[in-house]
Amino acid sequence: MADHPLEEILHPRAIAVVGASDSGGRGSGFLSPLIELDFPGQLYPVNPKYSEVMGLKAYPSVKDIPGVVDYVISSVPASQVLGMIRDAAEKNVKAIHLYTARFSETGRKEAADLEREILRQAKLANIRLIGPNCMGVYYPAQRIAFSSGMPRESGSIGLASQSGSAIHEIVDLAAQRGLRFSKAISYGNAIDFNESDYLDYFAQDAQTDVVLMYIEGVRQGRRFYDTLRRTATRKPVIIVKGGRGQAGTRATASHTASLAGSTQVWETVVRQAGAVSARHLAELVDFAAAFHFLPPVSGRRVGVAGGAGGSSVLAADLCEEAGLNVIPLPQEIRQELKARGSEIWDWIGNPADMSIRIDRDWDTGDMLKIMADHPSFDLLIAYIHAHFHRGQKRVSAQEFLNQYRLRELGNKPLLAVMEERGQSGNEDPEHAWAKQLTEDVKASLGDAGVPYYPSIERAAEAAARLIDYYQRRQSQQRHAAS
Amino acid sequence: MADHPLEEILHPRAIAVVGASDSGGRGSGFLSPLIELDFPGQLYPVNPKYSEVMGLKAYPSVKDIPGVVDYVISSVPASQVLGMIRDAAEKNVKAIHLYTARFSETGRKEAADLEREILRQAKLANIRLIGPNCMGVYYPAQRIAFSSGMPRESGSIGLASQSGSAIHEIVDLAAQRGLRFSKAISYGNAIDFNESDYLDYFAQDAQTDVVLMYIEGVRQGRRFYDTLRRTATRKPVIIVKGGRGQAGTRATASHTASLAGSTQVWETVVRQAGAVSARHLAELVDFAAAFHFLPPVSGRRVGVAGGAGGSSVLAADLCEEAGLNVIPLPQEIRQELKARGSEIWDWIGNPADMSIRIDRDWDTGDMLKIMADHPSFDLLIAYIHAHFHRGQKRVSAQEFLNQYRLRELGNKPLLAVMEERGQSGNEDPEHAWAKQLTEDVKASLGDAGVPYYPSIERAAEAAARLIDYYQRRQSQQRHAAS
Repeated sequence: MADHPLEEILHPRAIAVVGASDSGGRGSGFLSPLIELDFPGQLYPVNPKYSEVMGLKAYPSVKDIPGVVDYVISSVPASQVLGMIRDAAEKNVKAIHLYTARFSETGRKEAADLEREILRQAKLANIRLIGPNCMGVYYPAQRIAFSSGMPRESGSIGLASQSGSAIHEIVDLAAQRGLRFSKAISYGNAIDFNESDYLDYFAQDAQTDVVLMYIEGVRQGRRFYDTLRRTATRKPVIIVKGGRGQAGTRATASHTASLAGSTQVWETVVRQAGAVSARHLAELVDFAAAFHFLPPVSGRRVGVAGGAGGSSVLAADLCEEAGLNVIPLPQEIRQELKARGSEIWDWIGNPADMSIRIDRDWDTGDMLKIMADHPSFDLLIAYIHAHFHRGQKRVSAQEFLNQYRLRELGNKPLLAVMEERGQSGNEDPEHAWAKQLTEDVKASLGDAGVPYYPSIERAAEAAARLIDYYQRRQSQQRHAAS
Repeated sequence: MADHPLEEILHPRAIAVVGASDSGGRGSGFLSPLIELDFPGQLYPVNPKYSEVMGLKAYPSVKDIPGVVDYVISSVPASQVLGMIRDAAEKNVKAIHLYTARFSETGRKEAADLEREILRQAKLANIRLIGPNCMGVYYPAQRIAFSSGMPRESGSIGLASQSGSAIHEIVDLAAQRGLRFSKAISYGNAIDFNESDYLDYFAQDAQTDVVLMYIEGVRQGRRFYDTLRRTATRKPVIIVKGGRGQAGTRATASHTASLAGSTQVWETVVRQAGAVSARHLAELVDFAAAFHFLPPVSGRRVGVAGGAGGSSVLAADLCEEAGLNVIPLPQEIRQELKARGSEIWDWIGNPADMSIRIDRDWDTGDMLKIMADHPSFDLLIAYIHAHFHRGQKRVSAQEFLNQYRLRELGNKPLLAVMEERGQSGNEDPEHAWAKQLTEDVKASLGDAGVPYYPSIERAAEAAARLIDYYQRRQSQQRHAAS
């Protein structure tokens, strides 16, 4: 099988950054992360005003660069793009990432005309385009990033997004949960490579096991549906659609010149294709954490342990409302608690409200282990929280998590909820400690391979979408086999 | 009008804490916050094992206390409660808060029988009961709290909750948003004073302008509906119902022995009474912030400024889906932007995606001001965020907020959204700074009287429920007038 057309483009030997300068604009914003991440190929700043940029020799135009250049990042104004394409053609450049914007998204006729002409000239020159009006490629294993501070570490999440700021937000939210990216590509107005190309690329990319997308408009509807369906049978695809209502549709037009369709049609397409829909970027990351860390789960019977009082009651409601089945505590578990001498064996339920316990010789860790060992539960939620009593021993995140012995829960799928603690306004050192502990626990959970959620509602939604996906895939496989 | 029966009970001259000790149990947990907050009346630890507790003279029983005792907090075991009531009767105690639990919530017949007998004996002795199985009263202006670290500052939010842990969580979440409490009462199994009594109390309490409730079961259905309806015409009442589904109903039984009804009936009751329903505690606080800080808003036309790219598009979708009307940017505003020389006057929309702006002589603060001055908008959302470019000047929260000039927006109702920034995993000082800035901004917004939300979705939901409430109240008033 021939490589996907994006494969070669994403592995450039040399990158020219057109419009780079030392003055702090976006041109330097593309050059500096490549320097920071030690991009191993050649880097060429291009700017007729300078002989050197960021310590690298600069060239007046792409065609003046002495060596091979296969990839160009453009942040020159729209009016200079056609000239830049002519120069790039002379150097046999394979692809241009057009950060350059102010095209069809402005709604102005001459800008849209120029955009069409750019595509025409690029095709004649056999140059492929990413964008325009986008941030381009983040590919940490190849030491390519488009902003400073993007994580150096690689992972197995693939992301294609029409919006560049959405990539910043998703990568940031994901990093807090221990999720890293194979590649993240911002593709803006998508005049050449479009959503179907990027999805198709991630479908065949061995480095990617979960695909995330932020889409404003679909350029090739039928092709997208077919690609989505094919991809979703191989790996989970989670999509946020921007521009679902009237105002959002207006907004997509002025953001990436996208024509949004009706929400109902969109939801039907995603569901029939077997992909997963998320409503916003935080939910996208919530779902990604479940799909990344958890094995396929196809039953809905959840066990919840560790909540307290009203929060336990609401945990039951929120899990059910998300589509999970909060089964009564099985009789065998009651008998086991009785045998252990627990005073609340006949009374504790599921969710297991651990605040009613007075026998101190068993704890939430024990309850989770008992649930994990019982075949009635398909998945577990550890609803953990620190009890902040004054003068309490200040434990580290590791000591705190050790009491739950999460690693002993075998292969029963597990999600962890720890609500974000606040500052009570007064500068209470106990509260500050509790807050820091929560932060540290969050990070440790990602390291331990447990998806973290700041609320039961969000954990339950993520679990339910995971189960939906695998149930659908199972039933498709049964249909295919019969 | 006679005082509400709770009024005198909430203003005790002397409190006896039965079961207090220096050994760190819950008895001392009730005594120490009263000492910390400098409760101005007499405090009497009661425990036959000690002659002194926490530096205060201790008494073997309530009846041995020399002075007046009008309020007793009980953390003795259930088996000792009847004896304690006899002692309290001799001292003419007016009310007992029974932290003591293990009654009907255990599902055990003898425990339920004992609970009934306790109520009977208390009635004979003319003693009112708060609880049992609850945390009791937090009333900062009277220097009464039930846990250490509860804020000393008073406010105007009233809270009645069947769950004590829910009060801890709500007070903590609220403090981060600048919300303080008049009184918060945890009332557990509600065998004497019940949900209608507490609601009725807050209805007439001049210190309370927004009432929050967490309810698991309603003991007097008709009375509750009437009280709710009457209260909701005077001040907003926001309620979380615990035990909405099958599993939640089981959980309420073992938490506070409550019999939950059907969700549909509940939702109908709340809506018809003109109260506001929230799904969980974080949402309760979200809504409370809107009702506390904002004036009555009765139109749905929202202006959103400050987002970037995909987030702006999603802001439009999420506002619409919550029930707000994201109107197109009015022509007069386009003309004003044109007159100011803005290059994007014909292109920028609502939400105003400020990332497309290149003219640096106007900013999000200007856009918000222009929207505030235009009569088409009923309310505004400031979608603010720091752009984290490396080497950027590190501003304080105050300097950061100053650029939005929120105080200049007149009396147009305003909500602020600033998404929580994360740590990218690597210990990046820029990220740590961004995170701290977000924390500080959140606190500053509360001080400035602007409700803060961590996401557009949550701000939009809160705004929509606020508008629902005031539209309903307006139409009720029109009906009453016609």
